[in-house]
Amino acid sequence: MAQLIDGKAVAARVRAEVKSEVARLQAERGLIPGLAVVRVGDDPASQVYVAGKKKAAEEVGFRSWEHHRDSSISQDELLALVHRLNEDPAVHGILVQLPLPRHLDADAILSSVRPEKDVDGFHPLNAGSLLLGRPATRACTPLGVMRLLEEVGCEPAGKNAVVVGRSNIVGKPMALMLLQRNATVTLCHSKSDLPAEVSRADILVVAVGVRELIKGAWVKPGAVVIDVGMNRKEDGKLVGDVEFTAAAERASFITPVPGGVGPMTIAMLIRNTLEAAMRGVTPPSH
Amino acid sequence: MAQLIDGKAVAARVRAEVKSEVARLQAERGLIPGLAVVRVGDDPASQVYVAGKKKAAEEVGFRSWEHHRDSSISQDELLALVHRLNEDPAVHGILVQLPLPRHLDADAILSSVRPEKDVDGFHPLNAGSLLLGRPATRACTPLGVMRLLEEVGCEPAGKNAVVVGRSNIVGKPMALMLLQRNATVTLCHSKSDLPAEVSRADILVVAVGVRELIKGAWVKPGAVVIDVGMNRKEDGKLVGDVEFTAAAERASFITPVPGGVGPMTIAMLIRNTLEAAMRGVTPPSH
Repeated sequence: MAQLIDGKAVAARVRAEVKSEVARLQAERGLIPGLAVVRVGDDPASQVYVAGKKKAAEEVGFRSWEHHRDSSISQDELLALVHRLNEDPAVHGILVQLPLPRHLDADAILSSVRPEKDVDGFHPLNAGSLLLGRPATRACTPLGVMRLLEEVGCEPAGKNAVVVGRSNIVGKPMALMLLQRNATVTLCHSKSDLPAEVSRADILVVAVGVRELIKGAWVKPGAVVIDVGMNRKEDGKLVGDVEFTAAAERASFITPVPGGVGPMTIAMLIRNTLEAAMRGVTPPSH
Repeated sequence: MAQLIDGKAVAARVRAEVKSEVARLQAERGLIPGLAVVRVGDDPASQVYVAGKKKAAEEVGFRSWEHHRDSSISQDELLALVHRLNEDPAVHGILVQLPLPRHLDADAILSSVRPEKDVDGFHPLNAGSLLLGRPATRACTPLGVMRLLEEVGCEPAGKNAVVVGRSNIVGKPMALMLLQRNATVTLCHSKSDLPAEVSRADILVVAVGVRELIKGAWVKPGAVVIDVGMNRKEDGKLVGDVEFTAAAERASFITPVPGGVGPMTIAMLIRNTLEAAMRGVTPPSH
């Protein structure tokens, strides 16, 4: 029977580390990290996520601001808001909550955030630096997964890591982070032979958003299973992309849903914001 | 017995396509694509490569310039040269030949090239756009491999593609291009179980630089084998990273070395430069 990976506890530890760094920064340099969150429209899930991020920011001692705009905002108005936040020295991190309404060009908005303030790690320059192995702000969810692997003593070097799902936010940066730690990495998707691929995985990361897509019987005995999925069942309960009970019978470690990867995303956002503040805001070099 | 993939013939076809586009561009818009090549120091291999690129550029009707500088050039002087080429409207593509002498910061130099003129596809913004699936100038060698696959009717979707070697110039962008074409992609390196991984590959791309590292007996029957390696034997002959004769007995298609991938790199550089010229030089947006 697999051991549970307690993401809630790890996330709390990350936030506590950040909190003590913030206290030190304020005492020694009078610096308070600031996180600005931009939310457009009234998507209820976005409202919940943003509230969670704001709360976490305040708990560690950050300044935080929520800029809520009506869904009728124009591209130019939103770009102007981001520009203002780019120029504001009290703001070290800027987060534009996705999804944006369809009439807005999300790529252009995300690219308009100064890379130094892009605490989501979504700017193409940060993505490119990750690809090229240069220092960069890294996407929060895969960064959180790397931290969970570390916490359970899972060393990726020489292991077969299989990532199911190839999103820009999770799958692709996840594959690169595992590669950088010397795993042999396979990136799978809807055209892949999932039972075959999953059965080879010493480390399995699933981020698709399809309820219990990955059957427990496919899991390699002893694998570390990380389930990024969050799907709501008819009865309101949350379940992941992996058949939890059956997978837990074969895995060595497994993340529960909820309480696994979920809490890590916000914790790493907080950590990225602290690091942006500590780097100081250097003048744009491009 | 595998069919040979004749990179020399495909490259000639690509260059011929570019040549006729150049003639059209000049007739219709009075536009002549321009490629500036920067070479520092006296590395003999670089001298050969640069001469080859310049010759190819001239043959298709480009303007081309070689800026050769002494290996004692300072970082600031080299940045100033790149800056001047960035601003020169006759220059549509800029190529800084690697390797640079050790006292120079190659990352900083490559990042100083305007992304629109980065015909090598090495700028972090182009790398990031590739990762995020946005339009971008793509690295020439993997782009050339994609063209070879197309020429032999190899459709990556649903296939197992195995890339051996994880360089920024070949392995990583190669994996992303194959992923974008819906292959299941595995990226391998020195810590990987190569016989096991290679034997699963429907499409095998090897770019390591170790002579005959990949044994023919490992190759999956019917695989398409692309050998990016170029290693010189004691007798002066060039050989790839794959044991050619034994691999050819199992593969369906295989690239020879030389005459396989090698000629494609320059052909795709020429194609990237044409495309940079056709896009026109838009003002930097970042």
